[in-house]
Amino acid sequence: MPIITLTSDFGNKDFRVPAMKGKILSLNIGGRLIDISHEIDAYNLIEASYIVRNTYKSFPKGSIHIIAVDSFYNKNRKCILYEADGHYFLAADNGLLSLIFFDIIPTNIFEITFKNRFEQDDKFTTIDLFAETAAHLQKGGLPEIIGRKLSNPKELSFPRPTFSSGKIVGEFMYIDHFGNVVSNISKTIFTKKMVNYDSFSIQFRNQALTKIYNTRTGVVADWDNEKEYLGKAAAIFNEFDLLELTIYKGNINNGAKTLFGLNIGDKIFIQFSNNL
Amino acid sequence: MPIITLTSDFGNKDFRVPAMKGKILSLNIGGRLIDISHEIDAYNLIEASYIVRNTYKSFPKGSIHIIAVDSFYNKNRKCILYEADGHYFLAADNGLLSLIFFDIIPTNIFEITFKNRFEQDDKFTTIDLFAETAAHLQKGGLPEIIGRKLSNPKELSFPRPTFSSGKIVGEFMYIDHFGNVVSNISKTIFTKKMVNYDSFSIQFRNQALTKIYNTRTGVVADWDNEKEYLGKAAAIFNEFDLLELTIYKGNINNGAKTLFGLNIGDKIFIQFSNNL
Amino acid sequence: MPIITLTSDFGNKDFRVPAMKGKILSLNIGGRLIDISHEIDAYNLIEASYIVRNTYKSFPKGSIHIIAVDSFYNKNRKCILYEADGHYFLAADNGLLSLIFFDIIPTNIFEITFKNRFEQDDKFTTIDLFAETAAHLQKGGLPEIIGRKLSNPKELSFPRPTFSSGKIVGEFMYIDHFGNVVSNISKTIFTKKMVNYDSFSIQFRNQALTKIYNTRTGVVADWDNEKEYLGKAAAIFNEFDLLELTIYKGNINNGAKTLFGLNIGDKIFIQFSNNL
Repeated sequence: MPIITLTSDFGNKDFRVPAMKGKILSLNIGGRLIDISHEIDAYNLIEASYIVRNTYKSFPKGSIHIIAVDSFYNKNRKCILYEADGHYFLAADNGLLSLIFFDIIPTNIFEITFKNRFEQDDKFTTIDLFAETAAHLQKGGLPEIIGRKLSNPKELSFPRPTFSSGKIVGEFMYIDHFGNVVSNISKTIFTKKMVNYDSFSIQFRNQALTKIYNTRTGVVADWDNEKEYLGKAAAIFNEFDLLELTIYKGNINNGAKTLFGLNIGDKIFIQFSNNL
Repeated sequence: MPIITLTSDFGNKDFRVPAMKGKILSLNIGGRLIDISHEIDAYNLIEASYIVRNTYKSFPKGSIHIIAVDSFYNKNRKCILYEADGHYFLAADNGLLSLIFFDIIPTNIFEITFKNRFEQDDKFTTIDLFAETAAHLQKGGLPEIIGRKLSNPKELSFPRPTFSSGKIVGEFMYIDHFGNVVSNISKTIFTKKMVNYDSFSIQFRNQALTKIYNTRTGVVADWDNEKEYLGKAAAIFNEFDLLELTIYKGNINNGAKTLFGLNIGDKIFIQFSNNL
Repeated sequence: MPIITLTSDFGNKDFRVPAMKGKILSLNIGGRLIDISHEIDAYNLIEASYIVRNTYKSFPKGSIHIIAVDSFYNKNRKCILYEADGHYFLAADNGLLSLIFFDIIPTNIFEITFKNRFEQDDKFTTIDLFAETAAHLQKGGLPEIIGRKLSNPKELSFPRPTFSSGKIVGEFMYIDHFGNVVSNISKTIFTKKMVNYDSFSIQFRNQALTKIYNTRTGVVADWDNEKEYLGKAAAIFNEFDLLELTIYKGNINNGAKTLFGLNIGDKIFIQFSNNL
């Protein structure tokens, strides 16, 4: 029986997450539930897409992923079942799935229609629509039974890096629990441009770095004197091969975000150059 | 096998929650555990009652709910097993259950007596009494075996709205993850009074609202220009038909709590009036 | 099938914890996962050791405990499987296990070698090594298959209390969710010294207490007037028989940490004395 995962901006204190779990288990008591995150910033689709995109692949194919971000009941907005890369995703038709799968073509998109969306009682989309749909799929039900094909889902896009005059212009799009600041520049893009140049400089807020490590501990050149590297800044390609600024053994209070004063949306540049 | 749910003010960092889970699983390794919330404000029974009251019904009948709030070991205080609405609840005899079931008569109340409460080793009530009782019930054990009927449990009550001179006087009793502020005024009470009047005004801290929506998105009149509604204040009847102040797409930092400077216990008024 | 527990400093927001769970479930979909804590302070081995030491015993023998603190990929550092007290522990060879088992001799220590640690793809130790090893053990696999015996693991020690001139000198090593401040002085040590003296005084930051309670509620002498005890300070032997400062019904904002201005590493003294 496939796993159901849960992602939301509901937080871990309120009634919303456990009520959702209780409903799913009421419909399928043997079903398996795994939390992805409930600490997504309120209504933040970019953040939700970053976390889900980099998590869902760890789960077995066939998993069902509920993503309750910006999905409060709205009779004018569709709820969708999105099938892509062998997984199912349930969300409001708010563009979130197009952010997650910006580079993957979905297999199927269904509008969830098994319930009349205009029912007065349907105040809580997550419970009234997502929980029921997920339990239906988990028990082996067909998507076709709860919905109909949707051809024009809402589309969103996040900022992509640009390149001109020997410079990549990117921006920061996620800050993690350790205060690491993740940009939208991938190793693939960097490598492709780098072949034409001799050197590069990463620039952000009056700072510059000229090396990119491949691991979080790469900055430590001498492990017998590890302590000397505490607090040292580095650029790395992270677990998803995205350019990230990190502070060795930093945390949310003294990591790259705080030390460099960086925020989501701030620019980062890679200036390439050639020797004379 | 019924589900065991866990609610506490223990937080998600310390040893307390996992130690409780480990103990239950040691007694019944196949048992199912679901977290309700461990972020209840320390010793806050009103908050715990709001969350549990609005969550337990999502779970299947027969579920066993451990509520470890204000339950630290005290040899002078009883621990109780409370059976109501087809569910079991385990808590200290601190009045919490009477807050949850202020309008429902319990089926049975047992004092947990299977252990001598004066044992020196019983420092940690949740583990030493609740975990064992829950595992006993989960495996199909009878309540009568672990306790004896209790006729005089501690009773508490939370503030109820009052009505006089055409005005409902209520107060705020819960603030959620999005900064929404929930009052103790129900749709039922409002509707009952409203039949005698032509109009109403909701008043709090020099503010007034004259409309109550039925959904969190009701304030958006024109979805093509949704952005214009960001930050707009509204009164709604929430998922539990309680009057709530909300800010469209607000969060804990810029939601109703912060924008209106509201706190638990602050008053809210509904002034009814008739046309001349 | 044994339980896998998860402890980390990854936080509950990021992709790291759910990616770890997804990987384990991909390898063993029926396996059982329980979170210990993901809110360990970043890289804080002392804190991780306190929480795991006081939690793992609640779980059944044979449980597998992944501890992902200070375990980011480093090709120069081993990953270990540590068998002690009937449980399995997976961690980086950073000394953490020697803090947890400072007084227990491990049954076996293996270096995890089933994968070539120099593989380019192994960026995320927790997923690439711990998840696979845990799933292997959970399915009944032998430790010998994934590793080889290790004879010289890294050793660390935390500060131990000292005694001289009738005085125990200890220090604070953990602050819990209620703001309670836990020292490294055990009831055993205290009792052993106390037999030679008539009285004692606990001293810290210009404060002194002359009584140690055995429970968190011990300070309440009159339950009919419980409210008079709110905010009262007390020394107790906590659930693990460690000397702890607590405020009756305090929380993280007004507990012992805040009221006394105490931090990890601050000293605490027990001055013994005899009557003339």
